[in-house]
Amino acid sequence: MLFLVRIDIALPPDMPAEEVADLRAREIAYERQFMAGGEWLHIWRIAGEKANVSVLDVASNDRLHEILSGLPMFPWLDIQATPLAKHPSALD
Amino acid sequence: MLFLVRIDIALPPDMPAEEVADLRAREIAYERQFMAGGEWLHIWRIAGEKANVSVLDVASNDRLHEILSGLPMFPWLDIQATPLAKHPSALD
Amino acid sequence: MLFLVRIDIALPPDMPAEEVADLRAREIAYERQFMAGGEWLHIWRIAGEKANVSVLDVASNDRLHEILSGLPMFPWLDIQATPLAKHPSALD
Amino acid sequence: MLFLVRIDIALPPDMPAEEVADLRAREIAYERQFMAGGEWLHIWRIAGEKANVSVLDVASNDRLHEILSGLPMFPWLDIQATPLAKHPSALD
Amino acid sequence: MLFLVRIDIALPPDMPAEEVADLRAREIAYERQFMAGGEWLHIWRIAGEKANVSVLDVASNDRLHEILSGLPMFPWLDIQATPLAKHPSALD
Amino acid sequence: MLFLVRIDIALPPDMPAEEVADLRAREIAYERQFMAGGEWLHIWRIAGEKANVSVLDVASNDRLHEILSGLPMFPWLDIQATPLAKHPSALD
Amino acid sequence: MLFLVRIDIALPPDMPAEEVADLRAREIAYERQFMAGGEWLHIWRIAGEKANVSVLDVASNDRLHEILSGLPMFPWLDIQATPLAKHPSALD
Amino acid sequence: MLFLVRIDIALPPDMPAEEVADLRAREIAYERQFMAGGEWLHIWRIAGEKANVSVLDVASNDRLHEILSGLPMFPWLDIQATPLAKHPSALD
Amino acid sequence: MLFLVRIDIALPPDMPAEEVADLRAREIAYERQFMAGGEWLHIWRIAGEKANVSVLDVASNDRLHEILSGLPMFPWLDIQATPLAKHPSALD
Amino acid sequence: MLFLVRIDIALPPDMPAEEVADLRAREIAYERQFMAGGEWLHIWRIAGEKANVSVLDVASNDRLHEILSGLPMFPWLDIQATPLAKHPSALD
Repeated sequence: MLFLVRIDIALPPDMPAEEVADLRAREIAYERQFMAGGEWLHIWRIAGEKANVSVLDVASNDRLHEILSGLPMFPWLDIQATPLAKHPSALD
Repeated sequence: MLFLVRIDIALPPDMPAEEVADLRAREIAYERQFMAGGEWLHIWRIAGEKANVSVLDVASNDRLHEILSGLPMFPWLDIQATPLAKHPSALD
Repeated sequence: MLFLVRIDIALPPDMPAEEVADLRAREIAYERQFMAGGEWLHIWRIAGEKANVSVLDVASNDRLHEILSGLPMFPWLDIQATPLAKHPSALD
Repeated sequence: MLFLVRIDIALPPDMPAEEVADLRAREIAYERQFMAGGEWLHIWRIAGEKANVSVLDVASNDRLHEILSGLPMFPWLDIQATPLAKHPSALD
Repeated sequence: MLFLVRIDIALPPDMPAEEVADLRAREIAYERQFMAGGEWLHIWRIAGEKANVSVLDVASNDRLHEILSGLPMFPWLDIQATPLAKHPSALD
Repeated sequence: MLFLVRIDIALPPDMPAEEVADLRAREIAYERQFMAGGEWLHIWRIAGEKANVSVLDVASNDRLHEILSGLPMFPWLDIQATPLAKHPSALD
Repeated sequence: MLFLVRIDIALPPDMPAEEVADLRAREIAYERQFMAGGEWLHIWRIAGEKANVSVLDVASNDRLHEILSGLPMFPWLDIQATPLAKHPSALD
Repeated sequence: MLFLVRIDIALPPDMPAEEVADLRAREIAYERQFMAGGEWLHIWRIAGEKANVSVLDVASNDRLHEILSGLPMFPWLDIQATPLAKHPSALD
Repeated sequence: MLFLVRIDIALPPDMPAEEVADLRAREIAYERQFMAGGEWLHIWRIAGEKANVSVLDVASNDRLHEILSGLPMFPWLDIQATPLAKHPSALD
Repeated sequence: MLFLVRIDIALPPDMPAEEVADLRAREIAYERQFMAGGEWLHIWRIAGEKANVSVLDVASNDRLHEILSGLPMFPWLDIQATPLAKHPSALD
């Protein structure tokens, strides 16, 4: 089941650079784990913004919340998930 | 170059059913032509809404406008395009 | 899988009364069919507004869209579906 | 008398983990007390967000405010209550 | 139980003057009936706008919806009801 | 001259309890002084929110600003005043 | 008593030119009558928009509504009035 | 004096194609006249939208309004003008 | 050239009273200097809000920015400037 | 490929003046480097606001993000990029 997920990131500008770097490294590792597992299909940055959009394919809304709320940066994130359905124009 | 494109559709509720069916058929044919050509990567319905989200991969902003403004339903559409960039978590 | 669904209704004020009555009767019959089937759990009016909120329990986002887009009043509706997940305070 | 209640939670990201855990435990205990008492009918998380939606059945607006303003996390909450009325499609 | 009710009115500008006058007369008669009955406590125009705010004192949300949805101008109204509770500063 | 006044309160969640209690006591005393004087007609809490709505009857806009800007909590308040006029449905 | 009044104008684009011209002529005559009388102090167009802002000096909110609701274009106007008070920087 | 001008276009979808073509031709001719005259510096489409952004260099706000309100499509346009000032990073 | 300028003020509630008083005194002195010079025509408080509206008459957008960005409270202000043009109803 | 970029700046009002001056100097130097290189075509202040608008001409969305996210003030910026396309009225 597909969801479009927009994530806006609001780290405080005065967060120490090492803390930011550590958070980012853990964020990447965390997200890649679900990409490798086939549940996190796509992730793109929104050009110029502190935000990204992703497409996840999960078994349930509970699983969606479990993955997103486990993000290392979760306390600083504003997340909005939109349920996607099949479109008649899609080729597959 | 990738763009996230959200399209909201506002056909008048009293549009004759045949006209709607004709528009939809032409819309699907039009979109599939760019999917086959590799420029329209994804399209999903937003569940419950008269709207969809797509990801396009085009050579330029001018090409993006050319494709979107040529949609058979264009006069009834509200479109918003968001430029996407590569995210460090992406595996590819 | 649970969804909160808000539906705003915008019938034109000059729609003939019989047409409104017919639409409403078909809307009620349609919704009750899914209530009887266990997929449409709750529906309430928002007091004072031309709107209602529902809770649906469906197998997938595609099923959610199928049910909602089949509503007899669909052309006049503005629908927003929010995915719900289990809350740790819930007793069941 | 039914109300749909949306609660957005804004704990500061740097709140100590024990304080968060203590607040959450007290929040769950507080909410379950009204669930057991039949006034707090439903609570769901909004998938991916720091927010939840509930349905309460209370004797009055004053009682609604009394319950909500007593939430242990109340100083960090943004709450919006919507009065619900019976819908003609409801089976009961 | 008190509610603050804001009503925005959107009669089409080309509605014939007699129809407007008739609607207004029926609206006033309808509202005054509930004022006389003690359920519609206050009504004021918002200066300069096609809108008004009222305070109603009703036995339930269902009663609130019943009164408001019966307004002769209801098809042209946008209504928002806000539940009010007792404030500690109030003298009574 | 009547005004509808909505006041949203944003005390910092970590303000010491005594300071909050002191502010609240002074706020109540301040507001009751104008209620006794006939300029502050009504005050209600918005159920579930950190907000209230009032109706004031003042001699001028300057007087309205004088009363509202003198509120002990004024630095933490977001206030919006709407000018009210007589409605033809009102009985008095 | 001063009010800032923003007026947005939404004449239908297909209104016959003579009707527009007639409405405009009556609007100007109507407004000038209150300018000559000292109640309508200023009026300016918002550059590029179908909108204007005015400053009125009236004896009461009821008078404000009386003047604004009498505008010949009133059925096509969206009006918002903001109460103004004396500022300590003002020289007079 | 520079202004950023965003223009959103809302031609009715059922406007006859010849009328649209005629309006567009006149719009282009009108805009080019001020481009040739040095007052309309830039115009770009917003990719995917029925909207454009321009930069004008005019002698006054009155001149800005004169140019914009003379656009052949003006009755169907929603225009917002933002005053621009010199930025210290600019090279010229 | 006229501009309507709305200024919202967001001094931190815990700013020491002397600092607020000093800022206000400098703000008044600064604004009166341009009022005396004929560039700052009007200033009014918005009743009940921490905000004011002004009308300035300046030679250019650059001059407008120079005056506004020099306000002693500028770091705490949110400012929006709207270009005004002559209205055909104006008497002068 | 052209983009309209709006940047809102939110430096904390209590940031030490030297730090602000240093950031500004680095910001100007950074932006001028891309102006000299032909990728940053225009930059203007929005009169009265802590914001600016720019037009960039870049080879890709990735390049756009690279330039914008490298701004020395980036942690304090809110950026929105809009893809621009050729307009038929443009002379070049």
